[in-house]
Amino acid sequence: MIEPEKQQGEITEQEREAFYRVVFSRRDVRGQFLPEPVDDEVLSRILYAAHYAPSVGFMQPWNFILIRSRKVREKIHAAFTKADNEAAEMFSGERQELYRKLKLEGILESAVNICVTCDTSRSGSVVLGRTHIDTMDSYSSVCAIQNLWLAARAEGLGLGWVSIIDEVELRKILNIPEHVIPVGYLCLGKVSHFWQKPELESVGWLPRIELEQLVNFERWSGSAGEEHVSLVQQLQKDANFPKKSQ
Amino acid sequence: MIEPEKQQGEITEQEREAFYRVVFSRRDVRGQFLPEPVDDEVLSRILYAAHYAPSVGFMQPWNFILIRSRKVREKIHAAFTKADNEAAEMFSGERQELYRKLKLEGILESAVNICVTCDTSRSGSVVLGRTHIDTMDSYSSVCAIQNLWLAARAEGLGLGWVSIIDEVELRKILNIPEHVIPVGYLCLGKVSHFWQKPELESVGWLPRIELEQLVNFERWSGSAGEEHVSLVQQLQKDANFPKKSQ
Repeated sequence: MIEPEKQQGEITEQEREAFYRVVFSRRDVRGQFLPEPVDDEVLSRILYAAHYAPSVGFMQPWNFILIRSRKVREKIHAAFTKADNEAAEMFSGERQELYRKLKLEGILESAVNICVTCDTSRSGSVVLGRTHIDTMDSYSSVCAIQNLWLAARAEGLGLGWVSIIDEVELRKILNIPEHVIPVGYLCLGKVSHFWQKPELESVGWLPRIELEQLVNFERWSGSAGEEHVSLVQQLQKDANFPKKSQ
Repeated sequence: MIEPEKQQGEITEQEREAFYRVVFSRRDVRGQFLPEPVDDEVLSRILYAAHYAPSVGFMQPWNFILIRSRKVREKIHAAFTKADNEAAEMFSGERQELYRKLKLEGILESAVNICVTCDTSRSGSVVLGRTHIDTMDSYSSVCAIQNLWLAARAEGLGLGWVSIIDEVELRKILNIPEHVIPVGYLCLGKVSHFWQKPELESVGWLPRIELEQLVNFERWSGSAGEEHVSLVQQLQKDANFPKKSQ
């Protein structure tokens, strides 16, 4: 095997801070879309960021279906509305009331919709790294979505993930074959603004969990031994890091 | 509902370029780990980046199990080795020969291992946004992994995702209960260098697919209508964008 080429140069502190700013200011956008189109130059960069996500066995299982047609979007919106009504019925009392007030998609208002798929047959039936965990290929498509999402934020664009939709209907509308999984249906576009906090946090749907409660050691539920105490203290000290980095 | 606070300030062009640099220089690292420990300050920032990933219904289903114990890692490594041998047998001829030459994990050499999980019961049985697509919660944990991966690269650290492992054995070793999914097992640490290209691309396992082949319009396999031609041209023009941004 020929020795491959090494990367040159390091990420500077300033570049690192810029990266964190993008991460911590990213939001799930549903209600702030503007009708203006997205430039091809911008869309192209965002799609490249998605395409350079990690993928199991380098299979690159994703496709990006761009949807601009009003007719197609109206069908998607109708499928969302049906599912959304079903979903509301699953909550009760005040919770249902709050659910019904939330705006949960921007299908028709955003400039473009993108369905990110996973072609499970992309590189044959045996895939390096997918031999023991079947879901690794769709996880790769999710990595592509997260790259796309962050790139959108870096470009000042909003993105929202619509998951309240029946998969069978989505497949029918977009003509997606059996061996392909529609992993995420995204709404992308220019926005009037981004919120400081996630909307579901702001309206009191659920609180932000303290990170230190989610970090375990050596095993599930494992608490911090002596050698881990300093990390736990650091996590407490950094509680404001995301806000300061925004 | 009280009007929430808006974000101030825009992402500058320089910040955007820094973000893309992180995206395009990120690698799946298996073989370049150094034995030095990772500072708590760095680990804390990376974990915050993961915790600020998007999650369905803001359920934040993830936990981060940090594994430093040599004993636990040796068990994980043994489970990997067993699965890796099984996997090699699934390929034949030259393909199997190449597979056996590849280094596919850095479990023992990396400074720390992190298992990122998805607690499907995190916010009750009915979760906003998970009502119609069951896998949305594990997809959220994948988004956290991708944030963590990029943050590691921004900090100059390497990360590799070990997926060649039997889930039942992994659960047993880490004591993970039924309602929790071990979504990703990661190796994180300082590295001697990053490769310019993904290793599986360099050794000829699979080629990088041209992005324009993966972009469809209005439906699965939909080719570009007149209104989409300029984007396709832009994608062709930007073929070197990832390399230049690295």
